Amino acid sequence: MSLIVMKFGGSSVGTTERMQRVAQRIIDKKLQGHRVVVVVSAMGDTTDDLIDKSLELNDKPPAREMDMLLTTGEQISVALLAMTIHKLGHDAKSFTGWQAGITTEAVHGKARISDIQPTRLFKALDEGNIVIVAGFQGMTEDGEITTLGRGGSDTTAVALAAAVKADVCEIYTDVDGIYSTDPRVVKNARKLDVISYDEMLELAHLGAAVLHPRAVEYAKHNKVHLVVRSSFTQNEGTLVREEAAMEQGVVVSGIAFDKNVARISILGVEDVPGVLANVFGALAAEGIDVDIIVQSGVQNEKADFSFTVSLADRAKALGVLENNRSVVPYREATFEEGLVKVSIVGAGMVSNPGVAAKMFDVISKQGVSIKMVSTSEIKCSCVIAAEALHDVVRALHSAYGLDTADAVFVGGPQDRR
Amino acid sequence: MSLIVMKFGGSSVGTTERMQRVAQRIIDKKLQGHRVVVVVSAMGDTTDDLIDKSLELNDKPPAREMDMLLTTGEQISVALLAMTIHKLGHDAKSFTGWQAGITTEAVHGKARISDIQPTRLFKALDEGNIVIVAGFQGMTEDGEITTLGRGGSDTTAVALAAAVKADVCEIYTDVDGIYSTDPRVVKNARKLDVISYDEMLELAHLGAAVLHPRAVEYAKHNKVHLVVRSSFTQNEGTLVREEAAMEQGVVVSGIAFDKNVARISILGVEDVPGVLANVFGALAAEGIDVDIIVQSGVQNEKADFSFTVSLADRAKALGVLENNRSVVPYREATFEEGLVKVSIVGAGMVSNPGVAAKMFDVISKQGVSIKMVSTSEIKCSCVIAAEALHDVVRALHSAYGLDTADAVFVGGPQDRR
Repeated sequence: MSLIVMKFGGSSVGTTERMQRVAQRIIDKKLQGHRVVVVVSAMGDTTDDLIDKSLELNDKPPAREMDMLLTTGEQISVALLAMTIHKLGHDAKSFTGWQAGITTEAVHGKARISDIQPTRLFKALDEGNIVIVAGFQGMTEDGEITTLGRGGSDTTAVALAAAVKADVCEIYTDVDGIYSTDPRVVKNARKLDVISYDEMLELAHLGAAVLHPRAVEYAKHNKVHLVVRSSFTQNEGTLVREEAAMEQGVVVSGIAFDKNVARISILGVEDVPGVLANVFGALAAEGIDVDIIVQSGVQNEKADFSFTVSLADRAKALGVLENNRSVVPYREATFEEGLVKVSIVGAGMVSNPGVAAKMFDVISKQGVSIKMVSTSEIKCSCVIAAEALHDVVRALHSAYGLDTADAVFVGGPQDRR
Repeated sequence: MSLIVMKFGGSSVGTTERMQRVAQRIIDKKLQGHRVVVVVSAMGDTTDDLIDKSLELNDKPPAREMDMLLTTGEQISVALLAMTIHKLGHDAKSFTGWQAGITTEAVHGKARISDIQPTRLFKALDEGNIVIVAGFQGMTEDGEITTLGRGGSDTTAVALAAAVKADVCEIYTDVDGIYSTDPRVVKNARKLDVISYDEMLELAHLGAAVLHPRAVEYAKHNKVHLVVRSSFTQNEGTLVREEAAMEQGVVVSGIAFDKNVARISILGVEDVPGVLANVFGALAAEGIDVDIIVQSGVQNEKADFSFTVSLADRAKALGVLENNRSVVPYREATFEEGLVKVSIVGAGMVSNPGVAAKMFDVISKQGVSIKMVSTSEIKCSCVIAAEALHDVVRALHSAYGLDTADAVFVGGPQDRR
């Protein structure tokens, strides 16, 4: 008998019919002989509706009261799901975050889980109940209600799985699993059976967001076996686990891309110590996320360098540079849009020299020039012109052996049955 | 500096505009130098909407999960009210029932408050906050979320007022206060400045329901001074307190009536010991509330008796009699509709003989026959034909000196500004 954590997002329980289907799916799991702990998000648009209501009354609502308000969304979900399971003839008990013993730091809106004491959950399981826990929320040591911020329900699921020592934590979503690349771009993209935590992190950060990175980090740290699978099909999904157990021979697991890229170049910067720290410190202070940074050669003690930010942050970033011109003098600042970032991700890269070189080769054979490069142990990213995106992704997918004869596309982001 | 509990019902906070008006009213109270604890119900139709949603998924939802679901309504109210007060420039903190230290019995759907430990509320008050507590809810000693049942928010307010030793508990509602009778029937009905707990209880039970009887009982037991007043006007309202302090000379304080009355008569019942207990025990077991019971004389060891039930329970009550005919044999059971119950209520009645006789006299002078009579120390009720209701109420109102020259009607149940 296994102990399984199942997590369902808001769209999976957004209607009466979907709620009933999720309830049946949970019951099926129990009937297979497992002990089941379920984590649910707020239904459909509930959270957005509550935010709208609050903004009508206060355009800058206090974070404490916002947490008080938003946590009701998940509380409604768990109560209704428990009722639905009862209607189908099985025992279920719902729990708020604090009832589930989830303690967080004393921060509102984005608290981190500091401890979980699942005594009540085990008691309810021992009594034969399906246990249902509200995602996204917890309580401080002083009894204040908190939320975990974006991706919070994924984090609740993984943290609970670690606390109850679950055999597996299943994340139900609207895709069948993690794909070798976006099936909308490459028709015979294949669903990965297994992927490592680190690869998953790179893929998530690179725009293939299915699982929140925080949840993946938590899973890695606590060695929680994650499965990402569809709440609308019975397909197997993708297992996320440690690298040691990876299949041999696979060097690159997937191709990710990000269309939300703007490049900013600063030319003729005085090359004195501390320049980079000053520039990027100022950007960070304004909350601007900088991704790739490239410095070109130094001539006459002047340097040129470039970095990427999200499209939305472009104007703000240029403003920060202008405001800091007295501290960091430069000749000219320019920006470029119409770019994309393409990345190959694979745990095998670290021990396989030449993987990155092959990437550059494939891209250049497409007649596409590489504007920026960034590498880590398990990924290599290139910034290229947006119009070349599809050709380059298809070529890379093929070059790294990700196309296979039996790789039939069985579902994906658009496949919402 | 006084400590004041203010309670607002769901219709008082049902729209953005009303929420803002309530927030301002609370702030005004604070600016007068008082420490303020507020109790709020769920906004407008929230509770009904949640019930509808649950019934779509389960026609007999478990009471535990229903409490989990419904308590979100008040949690939303308190968070939004706190945000609104912040927007107007004042500090406020919202609390759920369990955060406010409200412990209840381990019963779902209609728990009684067993204890209140308001430590956190005092801390928040000491920090200069307006304190806002979710009505209608509490927590068992085992950490289960409970609701207090009908009229629960009134009870929360009164119980909190007792626990924090408030100087007064103000119940804001959609009427100006307690009236000598229904202003829709008697034009110069007057608002009472003061009324005793017992009179209030009789008036509430008799259909002039503004305050839930449970809350009044709680207030009486804990000597909490209650004020019933309008959330839409600045009028003074009615103070509910102990009899000892009542004005002298007032014998009858108000005239109440109830249109929801059916009379059932059982004729030719064998007059053996235990008959009444059997009949009314069986009715009580089916949840049927019996009001007035009258037994007429016994002839040939057969008795006739009559009792009143609400119109809705009429058919069910006759069914119970039929089903128990073997235990309590009778010749015939009949029912009568088109009746009303008129009551005079007054703490002075107990020491003023002849008050009831005067009532009978006034009614008979209207040419109306009295079908049933019931008396207590502070009230006397007569069941009469419905068509005579308005004439009788007006005549009684006048006969007991409740019409006065300066009694100007300043608002009432319909006066929703």
